[in-house]
Amino acid sequence: MRRSRAFVPTTKEAPSDATLPSHKFLIRGGFINSQGAGLYNFMPLGKIVLEKIRAIVKEELDRSGCQEVQLSFVTPIGLWERSGRSEAMGKEMLRIKDRHENEFVLSPTNEEAMVEMVKNRVTSYKDLPLNLYQINTKFRDEARPRYGLMRGREFLMKDGYSFHSSVEDMIREFDLMEETYKKIFTRLGLDFRVVAADSGAIGGEGSKEFHVLANSGEDTLVVCEACDYGANIETIYESEEEIDALKIKSYEELQELTIEKRCSCGSELHFKKGIEVGHIFQLGTKYSAALEAHFNDENGRSKPFEMATFGIGVSRLVAAVIEQNHDESGCIWTKATAPYVVNIMISNIKDDAQVNLGEELYTKLQESNVDVMLDDSKERFGFKMKDAELIGFPYTVVIGKELENGLVQVFERKTKESISVKADEIFEKITELLK
Amino acid sequence: MRRSRAFVPTTKEAPSDATLPSHKFLIRGGFINSQGAGLYNFMPLGKIVLEKIRAIVKEELDRSGCQEVQLSFVTPIGLWERSGRSEAMGKEMLRIKDRHENEFVLSPTNEEAMVEMVKNRVTSYKDLPLNLYQINTKFRDEARPRYGLMRGREFLMKDGYSFHSSVEDMIREFDLMEETYKKIFTRLGLDFRVVAADSGAIGGEGSKEFHVLANSGEDTLVVCEACDYGANIETIYESEEEIDALKIKSYEELQELTIEKRCSCGSELHFKKGIEVGHIFQLGTKYSAALEAHFNDENGRSKPFEMATFGIGVSRLVAAVIEQNHDESGCIWTKATAPYVVNIMISNIKDDAQVNLGEELYTKLQESNVDVMLDDSKERFGFKMKDAELIGFPYTVVIGKELENGLVQVFERKTKESISVKADEIFEKITELLK
Repeated sequence: MRRSRAFVPTTKEAPSDATLPSHKFLIRGGFINSQGAGLYNFMPLGKIVLEKIRAIVKEELDRSGCQEVQLSFVTPIGLWERSGRSEAMGKEMLRIKDRHENEFVLSPTNEEAMVEMVKNRVTSYKDLPLNLYQINTKFRDEARPRYGLMRGREFLMKDGYSFHSSVEDMIREFDLMEETYKKIFTRLGLDFRVVAADSGAIGGEGSKEFHVLANSGEDTLVVCEACDYGANIETIYESEEEIDALKIKSYEELQELTIEKRCSCGSELHFKKGIEVGHIFQLGTKYSAALEAHFNDENGRSKPFEMATFGIGVSRLVAAVIEQNHDESGCIWTKATAPYVVNIMISNIKDDAQVNLGEELYTKLQESNVDVMLDDSKERFGFKMKDAELIGFPYTVVIGKELENGLVQVFERKTKESISVKADEIFEKITELLK
Repeated sequence: MRRSRAFVPTTKEAPSDATLPSHKFLIRGGFINSQGAGLYNFMPLGKIVLEKIRAIVKEELDRSGCQEVQLSFVTPIGLWERSGRSEAMGKEMLRIKDRHENEFVLSPTNEEAMVEMVKNRVTSYKDLPLNLYQINTKFRDEARPRYGLMRGREFLMKDGYSFHSSVEDMIREFDLMEETYKKIFTRLGLDFRVVAADSGAIGGEGSKEFHVLANSGEDTLVVCEACDYGANIETIYESEEEIDALKIKSYEELQELTIEKRCSCGSELHFKKGIEVGHIFQLGTKYSAALEAHFNDENGRSKPFEMATFGIGVSRLVAAVIEQNHDESGCIWTKATAPYVVNIMISNIKDDAQVNLGEELYTKLQESNVDVMLDDSKERFGFKMKDAELIGFPYTVVIGKELENGLVQVFERKTKESISVKADEIFEKITELLK
């Protein structure tokens, strides 16, 4: 994309209610804009990031045998009454009425609709297991929407639901999804932890959360650096007062505290702050029994499906990447999530040599399927550099005065360090860096 | 995909309210299911078709310089009050209230939100033109939702909005989008017509519709076979009674009628029925003036943006493909829209030779990036064949008894004709057919 044609409205001003780095920088970098409390629009750069994350989620799920569907966002209230959740969901589930006064709900999650889709369409154990997912809009009418994309009202969620003929098979799929989720977050370039989320009914393994580690995280985790053990503090402290006291502590304060308990591997445990971006949950027959969704087993007996459910906060991930990867100058995208991995900056667009090299490199990188931005704007160098840091391209190739000596600079956003590279070797250098 | 693992719940029963072929066959073929009046879920095959169409739309728009964004589906009523459309949209625009009694709207279209996004972020003629689009959920609370995906309440629409510094530039973009839309519908494999939609304010060219020709179409068109001229009947008949009389006629009745007027090229004009799948519209300054979205021109004068708007009914296209391409046995997908272009049918899964060839061909086609289904189910041959016709794979490779003689059959869904092919040449034959 050419910067001169791109709609990337960066700005110096952050909204007054923006306290989190992702909230500030995603708005300042021209990724998103607010449409109302807890409602966000994705501008072109934000949309590209969102779609990159969506694509990786989809690719790994499909590879693990999941099948994508798309449920209606507006769902009849009747579904929720039959499952008994109409009351339980409370005010977060927004109820609406159509012109005929029929009542509907803006989907906050979709267990009921997914069970209804499978009910009577899958009737034999022979057609199981089945893992269906969607990546679709959700709405939760939070009392106090805040923190930008971290806690919006309208958001993009991947919600998956699996159907099984036995508890054993459901647990097999649960474990498969844990591995699949690990692949997803690893591919996204994130530092994350899988933690036990509750001591649950099913052997303490019935629910796991995936947290992106970040000082600003709302959740407090206890983790072992030696063996990958991790738990949400709810699962290891018994007193609610103790938990609440830990929850409100900043990461800096938490680091000062010591944990008396030791990990079962013998090592020390540490506190960390995390952002919940995934949750997998062994449901059992809760919804299938309530909605009478049955199959016939090997012996011809009718049984409700054993189920599990798997969620990923796709739009929240856009923010979580930045909570984990930013500095005082702005965003630092990982290679997998960057809207453009390389930014080619022509310092002086009146200099033909600079323009020619920029155009040449731009074409070559595009032909190699590298997502590249060509900064051909008329702004002065200092402005362009600040802009590139705010947006957070992993690499910026600066084509400037040094070109007279046959050199260009490669600026790495993460380290803020520049290296000089011979102009006629820049394509190979970039290709090497992106490996 | 293996049929034995795929969730493709085909059925003999069509819903009682289904009168259109697409409504019947998309439900019977396991593509969609109803979630309530005018609300549909896409099951795996339906989701694949929807995404194939979405991908082609996106690819061609991006190629023409458009930039994708994503607007919040729930939008504050204030936006609509400022543009004056709160009243004008009537009951089709569903109003909702959140927990704090603030009023919102389920987006039926997004002119206002897009103007707000650009306002104050694009301030100079130098940053124009700009063409932003989204492919996102829309909701219109139709009084009588019907015809399946053809007239749902919740649907997927591509809506684009362009911003210009002059009427001339807006018309240039309008023409570019006409060409882009033609490429999209051509790539989808559809027989379509571009027709003048009204005699409009701007030289009769201010609004064009794109219609997929189909006997079941709701719109009545007048077209010339010689020169590609086409018009919606509203534009060439003056009396409303005459128009209404024509509109309610079936295609069979229409064909009997003659048209007195002749095309400007001298040839005869004919009536056709069409399904509107696209609409491009020269807006001028209607919304930019109302919402005070201005830019500075070359002389520093503040002016409202000249705008145009461009829509495509993405989920409606899923149905339109089938309205144009079906027979009494079911769907006939075009190559570009088929969920799987090739279906490999192993007639007898207990026959090792049949299974081996099926598996081998399946692997080879997948490696060649052909979307292929392997029918490895235990059903009997007759059932599988009917199922393949209902689903509508363009080609089915039947691996059956003839394999003993070194032969397999290729069944073409459109013609329902089969040809015999040597088993060891089947890969090359399929590759040739897909060219």
